Amino acid sequence: MKRINTRKLFVAASIGMAVLTAALARAAGPLPAWNDGPVKQEIIEFVHAATDKSRPTFVPPAERIATFDNDGTLWPSHPMYTQLAFALDRIKALAPQHPGWKTKQPFKAVLDNDMKALAAGGEKGLVELIMASHAGMSTAEFEKIVSDWFKTAKHPRFKRPYTELAYQPMVELLAYLRANGFKTYIVSGGGIEFMRPMTEAVYGVPPEQVIGSSIETKYEMKDGKPVLMRLPKVHFIDDKAGKPVGINEFIGRRPVAAFGNSDGDRQMLEWTGAGSGARLMMLVLHDDAKREYAYGPANGLPDTEFGTFSQSLMDEAGKNGWVVISMKKDWARIFSSQE
Amino acid sequence: MKRINTRKLFVAASIGMAVLTAALARAAGPLPAWNDGPVKQEIIEFVHAATDKSRPTFVPPAERIATFDNDGTLWPSHPMYTQLAFALDRIKALAPQHPGWKTKQPFKAVLDNDMKALAAGGEKGLVELIMASHAGMSTAEFEKIVSDWFKTAKHPRFKRPYTELAYQPMVELLAYLRANGFKTYIVSGGGIEFMRPMTEAVYGVPPEQVIGSSIETKYEMKDGKPVLMRLPKVHFIDDKAGKPVGINEFIGRRPVAAFGNSDGDRQMLEWTGAGSGARLMMLVLHDDAKREYAYGPANGLPDTEFGTFSQSLMDEAGKNGWVVISMKKDWARIFSSQE
Repeated sequence: MKRINTRKLFVAASIGMAVLTAALARAAGPLPAWNDGPVKQEIIEFVHAATDKSRPTFVPPAERIATFDNDGTLWPSHPMYTQLAFALDRIKALAPQHPGWKTKQPFKAVLDNDMKALAAGGEKGLVELIMASHAGMSTAEFEKIVSDWFKTAKHPRFKRPYTELAYQPMVELLAYLRANGFKTYIVSGGGIEFMRPMTEAVYGVPPEQVIGSSIETKYEMKDGKPVLMRLPKVHFIDDKAGKPVGINEFIGRRPVAAFGNSDGDRQMLEWTGAGSGARLMMLVLHDDAKREYAYGPANGLPDTEFGTFSQSLMDEAGKNGWVVISMKKDWARIFSSQE
Repeated sequence: MKRINTRKLFVAASIGMAVLTAALARAAGPLPAWNDGPVKQEIIEFVHAATDKSRPTFVPPAERIATFDNDGTLWPSHPMYTQLAFALDRIKALAPQHPGWKTKQPFKAVLDNDMKALAAGGEKGLVELIMASHAGMSTAEFEKIVSDWFKTAKHPRFKRPYTELAYQPMVELLAYLRANGFKTYIVSGGGIEFMRPMTEAVYGVPPEQVIGSSIETKYEMKDGKPVLMRLPKVHFIDDKAGKPVGINEFIGRRPVAAFGNSDGDRQMLEWTGAGSGARLMMLVLHDDAKREYAYGPANGLPDTEFGTFSQSLMDEAGKNGWVVISMKKDWARIFSSQE
């Protein structure tokens, strides 16, 4: 009897396993956390249209730019923007060094957990809180503060670190587009230096592909070492009409695909849609109070301060052929960390 | 006698040729337009230090960021900045629509080719010329104006299109760094939208890796189509202390290598040098009046308005170990289009 070569057998088995795994992946398709249906089909059809050289919709690899909003599109923006939760925690952490805050609004509201008084302070109060928590340190110091916060802070409802709450369908979509030669960018109203410490690990998006709002920085020599100090002055607001402006400034190309979830993304989708060749514009509708949140006010959903999806945006989506993603119907699974 | 298989012979000969060509390329080294010597050696040693995993200076591929100034570093900045030549041509082209310019400074100076009167107008006059020539149209219109200008405009001394005057040694350096996993960026005081139409073809640098000065743009609907209108208002000056600010804003990583030629690049080189791991900071010294230009005022060279290399920059280079490239000694060839 011929002796069995265990090494050869092992190699053959490994190859068999690999073939089987690949076949299963093909059977499942490229976006397993998406339910089958017209929305998933739109994504797959768009990628074919953009990458098939024989079609007039073909997009050369260098021009395959896809832009994603962050809050409410790639991770939750409820019960409040993650960056606002960071600002409130930071104000509390800094309070011992600012005894006056105990009696001074909007700081008093934060320290008393008085969300009503906080809301009464309006945008002016919010900007004051952002500046007090985001400025006055170097960019390196801020990066450490943000990274440390992400290590310990948890979402109040889902009781997990925010970095484990990326939407699994969107993480798959980012990877699927990259696998098809797209360069994926984040284009968010959030702070650029608040996002960069986590985007690579959470979304596979490197810092140089993150566009966001920013405050001014100033180059200085400190103890013989150069630093960039963060100043309490707004430099750029990457929201609404600011999104196409930021995209043009940072990328210098028009996106081919754009993904958002709120009125803040309207102009980015318009700008993307005005180009030629294959196009995909999508909006995530939060209509799943059970697994995540439900808000609009489009389609009669409750109104919100954090990621408004207005009826007028819904109407424009219908008129322009933008695809509305129903979280409830189209997503088989919500979070990347979900079992 | 065995019949000779010509096809096999041809394949064998082809392989032989390929091996020979590769061997010759190795013998010539990676930077043929650079003369052998300590400066070329510094570049090659830096790349080894950054890419050799066994060395403590190793830089992971994702962090291999190299930033290049443009004017005077990648192409000439004499007799004036290329963008200024564009602005003057543009003012002349627009003059028929502005009869008042014939008697109004600084426009009169441009139309009269009166460089003395132009200089007398100072920075204020220059900004007026830039705004009159660079604002008031959409980004798409401006891109076309710039692209058309590059097709016809010629350098007054070298009588070639500006796009054929990239410095061949720097074009090779860009390619050599990219071949070693570096992402090459342009970080210029020049206008971001003036450079983007030509950087890919001339330097192999795509638009999303170009950082520069910018004016404000405004998102508008025009005849039902979204446009970005260029406004006569400065948004960001990417020069001197603005360069580290721009690098941090656009890339969010500290460069590992930085290349400049003037006092405008000092802070970019300081910022780059303050990081850890392999580092390379270089300055091009224009000391070759015969083949290009000679100016400083460092090393007793003539002073200039267009790319000042001061003695204090030279002293800082010496103190910090920045490498000064002598155009005369270190470059075997100057221009990419030179026979």
